[in-house]
Amino acid sequence: MKVTILGCYSATPRTLNNPTAQVLEINNRIFLIDCGEGTQVQLRKNKIKFNRIKHVFISHLHGDHFFGLPGLVSTFQMLGRETELHIYGPKGIKEAILLYLKLGNSYTTYPLYFHELTSKDSEVILDDERVTVQTIPLSHRVYTNGFLFTEKPKERKLDINAVLNYEIDKCYYQNIKNGKDVTLEDGTVISNEKLTFDPPSAKSYAFCSDTKYKPDIIPLIKGVTALYHEATFLDKHKHLCEHTKHSTAKQAGMIASEAEAKNLILGHYSTRYDGQEAFKEEAAEVFPSVALAQDGKVFEF
Amino acid sequence: MKVTILGCYSATPRTLNNPTAQVLEINNRIFLIDCGEGTQVQLRKNKIKFNRIKHVFISHLHGDHFFGLPGLVSTFQMLGRETELHIYGPKGIKEAILLYLKLGNSYTTYPLYFHELTSKDSEVILDDERVTVQTIPLSHRVYTNGFLFTEKPKERKLDINAVLNYEIDKCYYQNIKNGKDVTLEDGTVISNEKLTFDPPSAKSYAFCSDTKYKPDIIPLIKGVTALYHEATFLDKHKHLCEHTKHSTAKQAGMIASEAEAKNLILGHYSTRYDGQEAFKEEAAEVFPSVALAQDGKVFEF
Repeated sequence: MKVTILGCYSATPRTLNNPTAQVLEINNRIFLIDCGEGTQVQLRKNKIKFNRIKHVFISHLHGDHFFGLPGLVSTFQMLGRETELHIYGPKGIKEAILLYLKLGNSYTTYPLYFHELTSKDSEVILDDERVTVQTIPLSHRVYTNGFLFTEKPKERKLDINAVLNYEIDKCYYQNIKNGKDVTLEDGTVISNEKLTFDPPSAKSYAFCSDTKYKPDIIPLIKGVTALYHEATFLDKHKHLCEHTKHSTAKQAGMIASEAEAKNLILGHYSTRYDGQEAFKEEAAEVFPSVALAQDGKVFEF
Repeated sequence: MKVTILGCYSATPRTLNNPTAQVLEINNRIFLIDCGEGTQVQLRKNKIKFNRIKHVFISHLHGDHFFGLPGLVSTFQMLGRETELHIYGPKGIKEAILLYLKLGNSYTTYPLYFHELTSKDSEVILDDERVTVQTIPLSHRVYTNGFLFTEKPKERKLDINAVLNYEIDKCYYQNIKNGKDVTLEDGTVISNEKLTFDPPSAKSYAFCSDTKYKPDIIPLIKGVTALYHEATFLDKHKHLCEHTKHSTAKQAGMIASEAEAKNLILGHYSTRYDGQEAFKEEAAEVFPSVALAQDGKVFEF
């Protein structure tokens, strides 16, 4: 599982600070999460092939999470894209994109599907043979969802010495990987655990931005491999959280701790601060395994 | 008169190639012309103060000329702007911007005025004590205008030795600068030309992008100080002009030559070419005073 941070700053695009966008590679699927202005250029800089992106998830319709999307949709068209594109985001996103295409008289020729979200409860919005994606309802100034990406359970690993030892025919291998026992010709039952190793555990990634401190998401993301949680403010500006509906770094740490996340990535820093080390320190007071997002940084889990 | 090129490439934003946007400083007015994605960052890189921009002119509603505008309008708001902003562009631009503000629940508190253009004939769209701006109807795949910016005629320069010599009272100076003669107490009339020098000539700037070769704009831009004309293609791709409604570098040179422009700036290069020197060479075959726009380049006239 690999997360490439294209942008992780709040508010306005700056020379060195890009607004939110990131690419998640999980179980051989590629997902673009949020699409602030400049995301196209960040994709190029980070050498991510445009054509591999088939699913885009938009948390909410504030500019710093979404104003790069009309351009990306248009660029796909100009590059002669033929593969379909699915866009998941709050109701209104379809009207927003289609209006800009209409004004430019430039409808797409590739299949473009919108999946507009309105539910206040978590829902599964994508489910294929590799990954499940469900929403994480957040609390921000406008309707906002985080997203939880979970790998499908993987097949068990064949213990090749064991199966050769029992002289088991290859035609049974897939069944064994799927967890089945094997009955030999003499009637002996060989239990699956003698023939396989445990599979690598299914990984998961939770993206939570933007939101105020919202502990009721904890059951949903319990045990997550990596949690990206917004940390707009340091503790000294905690009083700004209620009005702006953002979180502090420490609050992000508290969510990670309660959720028993394996790793926490902080991001969405207010540009009022000169550096980010203090964010890490404040989150680490309550959760040890914390890392700082930076534009262009890649995390592998 | 100063032109700062923020972006001058066609189609999609790239790591080193920004889509169209430029800032014109003329007679102490600042105008933003077109606003492709990434314009905010280019403004910062080129150290142009956001607050000085009070007028934005959008030629047409293709993404590479306009997708930076929602973000700019939002950023002005986030920076606490109070000064008014006037946006001139094709009909639809108001709906486009207001929809994005509405979706983000982030209306501006500064006064925001839209001046939607629909006329197929040239019209004066701004006229104050310093500058006149009129549209240059162009021919592209969607409704498109270029813009002609003309300084108001300047006052004559006082010949201070002459006025002292005639012992003319200071209260007459402004009248003299305005071109008036002076009658001395003894009844002698001193003609204005004895008291003043010619003023610096009024400068003008024509922005013409995007358009196919359209010689009927020539009377409108006759004698212009500087013409920025799109040059999407080299001559070897001239056959693409009719369908895409773009121009070649040579066609831009022909317009400049016929219009007796003092200077020509080429831009809006297709990204299919590796360098731009050939654009200059091909335009220079028909018009000698040609320069190449480059992102970040400043022209002074």
